[in-house]
Amino acid sequence: MEYAFKLDFKVRDYECDIQGIVNNGVYQNYLEHARHEYLLASGVDFAALARNKINLVVVRAELDYKTPLQSGDEFWVGLNTRQSSKVRFEFLQDIYRRADNRLVMKAKIIGTSINERGRPFLPEEIAGLFGAD
Amino acid sequence: MEYAFKLDFKVRDYECDIQGIVNNGVYQNYLEHARHEYLLASGVDFAALARNKINLVVVRAELDYKTPLQSGDEFWVGLNTRQSSKVRFEFLQDIYRRADNRLVMKAKIIGTSINERGRPFLPEEIAGLFGAD
Amino acid sequence: MEYAFKLDFKVRDYECDIQGIVNNGVYQNYLEHARHEYLLASGVDFAALARNKINLVVVRAELDYKTPLQSGDEFWVGLNTRQSSKVRFEFLQDIYRRADNRLVMKAKIIGTSINERGRPFLPEEIAGLFGAD
Amino acid sequence: MEYAFKLDFKVRDYECDIQGIVNNGVYQNYLEHARHEYLLASGVDFAALARNKINLVVVRAELDYKTPLQSGDEFWVGLNTRQSSKVRFEFLQDIYRRADNRLVMKAKIIGTSINERGRPFLPEEIAGLFGAD
Repeated sequence: MEYAFKLDFKVRDYECDIQGIVNNGVYQNYLEHARHEYLLASGVDFAALARNKINLVVVRAELDYKTPLQSGDEFWVGLNTRQSSKVRFEFLQDIYRRADNRLVMKAKIIGTSINERGRPFLPEEIAGLFGAD
Repeated sequence: MEYAFKLDFKVRDYECDIQGIVNNGVYQNYLEHARHEYLLASGVDFAALARNKINLVVVRAELDYKTPLQSGDEFWVGLNTRQSSKVRFEFLQDIYRRADNRLVMKAKIIGTSINERGRPFLPEEIAGLFGAD
Repeated sequence: MEYAFKLDFKVRDYECDIQGIVNNGVYQNYLEHARHEYLLASGVDFAALARNKINLVVVRAELDYKTPLQSGDEFWVGLNTRQSSKVRFEFLQDIYRRADNRLVMKAKIIGTSINERGRPFLPEEIAGLFGAD
Repeated sequence: MEYAFKLDFKVRDYECDIQGIVNNGVYQNYLEHARHEYLLASGVDFAALARNKINLVVVRAELDYKTPLQSGDEFWVGLNTRQSSKVRFEFLQDIYRRADNRLVMKAKIIGTSINERGRPFLPEEIAGLFGAD
């Protein structure tokens, strides 16, 4: 599998819960950080957009949990993108454990971009990024 | 819509991010807490099970984000359950903002129960809960 | 001990870590939420101030951990305030476990208020609150 | 200033709050992760100890917030240790922003080690680490 972008991580102990594995909600943090780093590397700054009242928001997330991460695990997030409609874009994100390249999670995150009044608004740099025509 | 269980919440400011709205990953915290309170009220103690090496885990999550929650918002999570296979159970969870009863999120969380060796293992109290026959 | 403000909480399982107790960093979340609810009840809205580029920030925190909270524990945060200088105010915050009124944490949080340029700036409603003269 | 251990980080957007800066509670996460990585590099595995019912816990934290971290900031945590009593050890931890080496936080974290019954218990590998004699 080829990815447009990859980012390395290591599990931090505070991310693990009573079961001794990474809490199910924490994976969305990993995925978000990978998306934002990808966007930043592509010239789109989530925080700067937010300061200008343009919000990139998640409208749907589908997360398949395959193998739980544990304390000490190193892993990486691979990411591809796809324009799914005029104002919606998809991030296809997979997480792999480094030690054995085992699949940890498959995720599809659908996002959009809205302005101050909550209306769809696609900044030029994002439109370019997702190859809208 | 009727729910088997409801739980009240209020947004805490540390749950909001740069955009001034609740971070997309935090909703899974809300959903998990509602599930665990429902389970506890039904005689299933997530933490006690974990101490006995029986782990209730999420295998798939589908989250539709409808309206963002903001600082100060009160909201509630409604929950229904459904047995989807011999060893899988579904939580259908909706979040509503209290002020205007607006739908905030629709979620389907599919879980299973595994033992120390990662094998499916359904404790009696859970089987009873989801009406397996 | 008398408190100017009290707020009830219940531990959520995602707040507990590998040790099965609330992670040490989570207590600051509890303390912050109690401060913000106290401020809100006193007419000071942290989020509204932030939107107007006035930031209430912590400059020093002293936290004494007395008894760890666990899954299922109900507890409350008691709070008193004190003006410690022209632009600094203190929150004296104690956490008690409900079941046995055992002291969980003693904390002193020193805060200040700054404007967009990072300079001390005390809005009138806060000055009033802390009894500056 | 010399440090026995250093660890590099980068702010993740989900760690920032409404004010657009890293939430005050998140710094304890950074500090904890740096401590655990230091311990691991020194042969002490926090998670493995927890599985054996030996808990390293924080008994006091003193945190001085000097400069807020923001979205995109790279930073590092420097750490020194000191044995403060037979069963207590101190971590002196400073955080610096990479871009300008500005001091972000000075922290003193006092910890101890307890067994299953909550009694002080210092495993050999920790005693060795902090130079108790």
